[in-house]
Amino acid sequence: MTKRLIILGSTGSIGTQTLSIVRENPERFAVAGLAAGGNVELLAAQIAEFGPHKVSVKSETEARRLSSMLGGDGPKILTGRKGACELAGEPAELVVSAMVGAVGLGPTLCAIDAGTDIALANKEVLVTAGELVLQRAGAKDVTLLPIDSEHSAIMQSLLGHRREDLSRIILTASGGPFRDLNPNELERVTPEDALAHPTWNMGPKITIDSATMMNKGLEVIEAHWLFGVEAQRIEVLIHPQSIVHSLVEYSDGMSIAQLGLPDMRGPISFALAYPERIAGAGKPLRLEELGRLDFLPVNRELFPCLDLAYTALDMGGTAPAMLNAANEVAVEAFLSESIGFLDIPRITRSVLQGSRPRVVDSLDAVFEADSWARAEAQKLAAAAGK
Amino acid sequence: MTKRLIILGSTGSIGTQTLSIVRENPERFAVAGLAAGGNVELLAAQIAEFGPHKVSVKSETEARRLSSMLGGDGPKILTGRKGACELAGEPAELVVSAMVGAVGLGPTLCAIDAGTDIALANKEVLVTAGELVLQRAGAKDVTLLPIDSEHSAIMQSLLGHRREDLSRIILTASGGPFRDLNPNELERVTPEDALAHPTWNMGPKITIDSATMMNKGLEVIEAHWLFGVEAQRIEVLIHPQSIVHSLVEYSDGMSIAQLGLPDMRGPISFALAYPERIAGAGKPLRLEELGRLDFLPVNRELFPCLDLAYTALDMGGTAPAMLNAANEVAVEAFLSESIGFLDIPRITRSVLQGSRPRVVDSLDAVFEADSWARAEAQKLAAAAGK
Repeated sequence: MTKRLIILGSTGSIGTQTLSIVRENPERFAVAGLAAGGNVELLAAQIAEFGPHKVSVKSETEARRLSSMLGGDGPKILTGRKGACELAGEPAELVVSAMVGAVGLGPTLCAIDAGTDIALANKEVLVTAGELVLQRAGAKDVTLLPIDSEHSAIMQSLLGHRREDLSRIILTASGGPFRDLNPNELERVTPEDALAHPTWNMGPKITIDSATMMNKGLEVIEAHWLFGVEAQRIEVLIHPQSIVHSLVEYSDGMSIAQLGLPDMRGPISFALAYPERIAGAGKPLRLEELGRLDFLPVNRELFPCLDLAYTALDMGGTAPAMLNAANEVAVEAFLSESIGFLDIPRITRSVLQGSRPRVVDSLDAVFEADSWARAEAQKLAAAAGK
Repeated sequence: MTKRLIILGSTGSIGTQTLSIVRENPERFAVAGLAAGGNVELLAAQIAEFGPHKVSVKSETEARRLSSMLGGDGPKILTGRKGACELAGEPAELVVSAMVGAVGLGPTLCAIDAGTDIALANKEVLVTAGELVLQRAGAKDVTLLPIDSEHSAIMQSLLGHRREDLSRIILTASGGPFRDLNPNELERVTPEDALAHPTWNMGPKITIDSATMMNKGLEVIEAHWLFGVEAQRIEVLIHPQSIVHSLVEYSDGMSIAQLGLPDMRGPISFALAYPERIAGAGKPLRLEELGRLDFLPVNRELFPCLDLAYTALDMGGTAPAMLNAANEVAVEAFLSESIGFLDIPRITRSVLQGSRPRVVDSLDAVFEADSWARAEAQKLAAAAGK
């Protein structure tokens, strides 16, 4: 049976890679809907190729541009948050949640409320609203399929094994470009240094998060919600080659791991085709050609962002949303060279320490926490400014 | 519910390790029967501790010695092949097949015919009679649970994934002590050199098989039967640290692996408790303490025994039984220093080349092939003798 997909964030990196897998597998997938932000040109081309019956864009401005490009023909065009939510709730077998940032949270909840399974690439959904998302998904019996190499690896390593035997989840981390620096060197790191990330090809925000290891901290929070495992049983291991995508350890000391070349097509195709697999989606791994895999402990003093994520989970409620918001502001300030690299954890920690987390019982609770933390972080970034 | 076990080969290495796991888990396991060869002292102690209601020994001589040791009390004592077969067919949830050599084949088939699941440590069972064993196991819906690190790893990596998505099985091999030698050095290797195996603590026969890589060849044959995968899709990868116990690759390029410290308690406890796990059976793996894992291709010219195993599988029928028998004779001759290290593959290859394999439709077919190959190998060993 053809699987109908709705892709939220179709013009971004995950969206376009998803569509390239759809293109190669027309007998498996059909595109029911596409949601994009401002890249109307690319969206128009995607509409022409994949023929969704509904799309959504940021606002009326983009809707008018798109409409004139399509020349009257084409799908129904929805706009804004309400439009994205309506699109996400359309009949489909799978919604790919791949918008960037907090804007993806609303439509993802709309898809969950419609009872559609979610392929989840948007980190903010679980980091900022994990409790709410899991409650709603549970109520509608919705499956969350992670689209990122670590959580996909964990999911694959849990399949077929009894959950009660699980003892630890071990998230691997490349360690970023600075894992061998000392604190003095780290203080003087520039955005340019940080953007030279060795293994995965990613955007600037996530590359900085990878360099501070906040990225891994956010993944710990995601893993906590996705797999229902307390934070103390989720660990992080440095693995520079990014071949072992993560591991699961069972109570008898046996570990199961998923390995593969670093290529997002792997986790995307796994989430799209689950419970099947798409033959040829990724290149086979030849360990004998790689020769060697390295593993190191995390230096938690050098990379305090990781501990901040555990702290936020421990504080509970809206604390992870505030962690995420404060970090975003601090990373932007670092990228614009107005603060130093180690100001990122300093600012994020201060925001967390001054915060009063609430229960995540609504999207408004998340957005309020987000706004408050951004404002606090901006004040601190201005004060730390060079 | 308590699982009743019958242990064939209770006084050997796998047998005693199995009983130590039973000792630690009295609420999970009960011992219904024990079969041993000549170590009557240890068997008497095992009877005293675990209280089986039937045991079997090699012959009347051992039976009388055991009987006098037990002083009238104790279990019913059976003898010989017939006794071992009767014991194996007693009511139980699991028969641990851990006798060494071809003598284990008969009782294992008796257990299968009785419909009891098998925890299989005896290599010869599948190597020499895979076709017959699989037919009989299929007819009685008997599950075969491998007790060795590689096949246990493969089984664990297949659980929960669709068999039709399987693309390759990758058996890891430590490579033995000689993986870095050249042919001239290999020609001059002594039994003493070979018995200094780096990772696993094993008996002399299997240590030599590990050094020639015939061990891995026999495991390829076992994997073929256990998992129903053609030989061309079973590969061997050198991994000196023996941490990745084997891998399975799926059609989308993703690999699943089982990792753990080299400790037979892992696969034994997995087979005993399946589908559960025994908490604390093995020590957790700390990859950050190991630091590094290496992977190399096999040098097939230097280790021709591996190709001989593929050849025997390809010849089919009784050819693997003849390969196994010829190899056993050649290894004995090498251990007694009457032939050189490279005479092992030479003799085995000659026996295989001169053989006329038949269909494995009975135990007699296996035993005939075994006897013929032993006689041929002995002639060749005498001719090659120093």
